[in-house]
Amino acid sequence: MRELDSQQLRDIARGAAILGTGGGGDPYLGTLAALQALKDFGPPRVIEPDEVADDEVLAMPVMVGAPVAFIEKFSLGPELESAFRALDKHLDRRIVALMSAEMGGANSIVPLVLGARLQLPVVDADAIGRAYPEIQLTTLTIHGISASPFALADERGNTTILHTIDNFWTERLARPIAVEFGAIAASMGFAITGSQLRQAGVLGSLSYAERIGRTIREARVNKQDVIAALLGVTGGFELFRGKIIDVQRRIERGWTLGEARLDGLDEYAGANMLVQFQNENLVAIRDGQLAACVPDLITLIDADTGEAITTERLRYGFRVIVLGIPCHAQWRTEKGIELGGPGHFGYDLGYVPIEDLQQATRERRT
Amino acid sequence: MRELDSQQLRDIARGAAILGTGGGGDPYLGTLAALQALKDFGPPRVIEPDEVADDEVLAMPVMVGAPVAFIEKFSLGPELESAFRALDKHLDRRIVALMSAEMGGANSIVPLVLGARLQLPVVDADAIGRAYPEIQLTTLTIHGISASPFALADERGNTTILHTIDNFWTERLARPIAVEFGAIAASMGFAITGSQLRQAGVLGSLSYAERIGRTIREARVNKQDVIAALLGVTGGFELFRGKIIDVQRRIERGWTLGEARLDGLDEYAGANMLVQFQNENLVAIRDGQLAACVPDLITLIDADTGEAITTERLRYGFRVIVLGIPCHAQWRTEKGIELGGPGHFGYDLGYVPIEDLQQATRERRT
Repeated sequence: MRELDSQQLRDIARGAAILGTGGGGDPYLGTLAALQALKDFGPPRVIEPDEVADDEVLAMPVMVGAPVAFIEKFSLGPELESAFRALDKHLDRRIVALMSAEMGGANSIVPLVLGARLQLPVVDADAIGRAYPEIQLTTLTIHGISASPFALADERGNTTILHTIDNFWTERLARPIAVEFGAIAASMGFAITGSQLRQAGVLGSLSYAERIGRTIREARVNKQDVIAALLGVTGGFELFRGKIIDVQRRIERGWTLGEARLDGLDEYAGANMLVQFQNENLVAIRDGQLAACVPDLITLIDADTGEAITTERLRYGFRVIVLGIPCHAQWRTEKGIELGGPGHFGYDLGYVPIEDLQQATRERRT
Repeated sequence: MRELDSQQLRDIARGAAILGTGGGGDPYLGTLAALQALKDFGPPRVIEPDEVADDEVLAMPVMVGAPVAFIEKFSLGPELESAFRALDKHLDRRIVALMSAEMGGANSIVPLVLGARLQLPVVDADAIGRAYPEIQLTTLTIHGISASPFALADERGNTTILHTIDNFWTERLARPIAVEFGAIAASMGFAITGSQLRQAGVLGSLSYAERIGRTIREARVNKQDVIAALLGVTGGFELFRGKIIDVQRRIERGWTLGEARLDGLDEYAGANMLVQFQNENLVAIRDGQLAACVPDLITLIDADTGEAITTERLRYGFRVIVLGIPCHAQWRTEKGIELGGPGHFGYDLGYVPIEDLQQATRERRT
C-alpha cells in the first residue's frame, strides 16, 4: 500500500492521457478533481493486485458517455458516490477496493477521486490497458466476467441498476441512460473478486501510467527529447509528424465520432495521415497504408507542449506527433481481436500488430 | 375475494378496451394471455381495496412501450415474472398483491395474467381510471407517491431497476430502455401500501370495466342498442358517427403518434371530426369545435362489431362511433389537469369537462 502525492497524481494523469488514445475524458479535468479530492479527503491509497483476497470484492467507477460532456459536467462528486452506494447496497458483499475500468484519460483518475472521498484503496490495475469507447470492451469480457450489476447515477439523484445477460447489453442500455442524464453518467460496475482480478485484469497499469507520466516530466525538466523518452518507456513507435488540416466531428448516441486529416512536416513532408476515432483514435492511415489500428494504441501529441490531445480538442492547425503503442497481450488473442479489433468498429480490415506494420514500412523504404 | 372465470375475463377485457381510449395495448391479445393463464395456473383472484392492510405492499405490472409492439411481442410470460422478481427482491417488504396501473387496454389484464401465474391476488382498483401513454400520468403522482423502485425486464433475461427523483424521470429513463428491449418492456413499479392505495388509487375500477363489458355483451345477446347501453353504464356521450377517411400514424420514441379524420354519417352527415392520439386518443374536434379532450375519455367503437378500436388498428374506411366519457374526479383537480390535461400533450387549449362541451353544443343547436 502506498499513498499518492500531488506530483504522482499529475504523473498518472499525464501517462493516462497517453494511454487514453484521445478518449476517456480530458485528463486535465480528471487531475483537477483528483487534486481537489486529495486536499479535501487526504491522499488516495494504491494497493497491489495481490492485496485483495481471493473472495474479496472490488468494483470499478466509470464515467459513461461523450467525453466532451466531461468538459461541461465534470464534478466527480455526489453522482459517483451515488452510483457507488447503489451498487454496494445491491451486492451481497461489501466493496473493499476500487479499480480503474480503463487506464486512459480521466476515467483512470476517477477511482482515485472516489477512493479518496470514500477512504477506499485503489488497485494498481485496470480492465483494458488503454481507453475504449464501450463498456463491454474489457479484458473481463474476454474472460466471460459480467459487468452486472451495473449502477448509473446522475447529479440530480437518479440511479439505475442494470442486470444484463452479457456486457454488450450493459453497453446498449447504459448508453441511452447516459444520454438522458445529460450526455454523461457516473457508473459503478464490474464487481469482481480478487481471484477474478488476477485471472483477467491488466495488472500494474496504474504504475505504468505513472511511469509514463514521470518519464515525460523528467525528460522535459532535463531538456531531453520527450518523444524519444516516451518511445523508450512504452515500446512505441513514432507514426507521423504533421499539421492538422481538417477535423470532422459529430456527437452520436453519446459518442464523439469523426476523423482528422494531417499533412506531413519535417521528414514526413509530402506525406499525409488520416486518423479516425470513436471517442478514442481507432485507425491511422499513412499515405493510404495502414499505420496502426485498434486494439493497438494511437495517440496524438501536441508538438508544442508534449501533452496528449483528446479527440474532442483536435483543431485545425495543431502540429502533432502521432504515436503508436502495442496493446496488452490479451487484446492480441483471437477473442481479444474479435471483441475490440477493427472489425468491431465496422472497419473492413484485419488486425495487424503495429510492430509488423512498422517492419513492413521499413522494408518498403529500403 | 372472488375468482374470475373466462367470461368475466372477457367482460373485463371488453370493458377495459372502452376505457383504454385507443391505447394500453390490444385487449384481445390481453384476453388471450389471461385465458391461457387461467388454463395453466387456475383462475386469477380479485380482492377489494380494503383487503390490503395499511402497511402491506402491492405493486403494479405494466407493459411499457409502443402498443403496436404488443401485437408482435405479446407473451406476458417470463419477462413479467422477471420484472416482478427484480422488484420484489429489491424491496424491503414482500409484495402481497398486484394491481393494474391503468384500467384501459391490455395493461388492465396484465396483472390478472401475472396474478394467476404467481398465485397473487389482484386488487379491484387502478392508478388512472383510463389509459395514459406515460408512466408518471397516474393519480399516485398527483398525490406525490413515487413509481420507484421501478423494474424493467425483457424476454432475454435483461433487467433494470430505476430509482428516480420523480415519476417524470421514471418515464424519461424507462422509455429508451423499452426501445432498446425491442419497443416494449415488461415493468413492475409503484410499490405502494394499502393506506396509499386507499388515499390515491382509483378504487373499484376493475369491476367497473367488468360491468361495462358485461353490459355490452348482454345488450348484444338481447339485441339491444349497444351504444345506448354503453352510454348508460358509463355516463358518457355519443360525440360522432362517421367513416375514417384518413389516418396518419408514426412510431416515435416508443409511442404511436398520429391522427384520424372522419366524415360524418347518419345524423352527422356533412360534419367532420379530427381525433388526435399519442397511444391514446387525446383530443376530438368536431367541425373545428372541441368536442372532448384529455383527461376525459375518447373511444372509437367499430360500428359493425360494437368493439373499441385501438389507435394502431385504425384504418381508412372503418365506420366508427366516437364516445366521450367523463374521467375520474381526481383528474379534474388543478393538479390532475396540470399533470394529465391537454397542456401536458402540447395542446394550446384549456381543459373543459365533456359535460360542459356537450351543453355548449346543445345550446348552439337550439
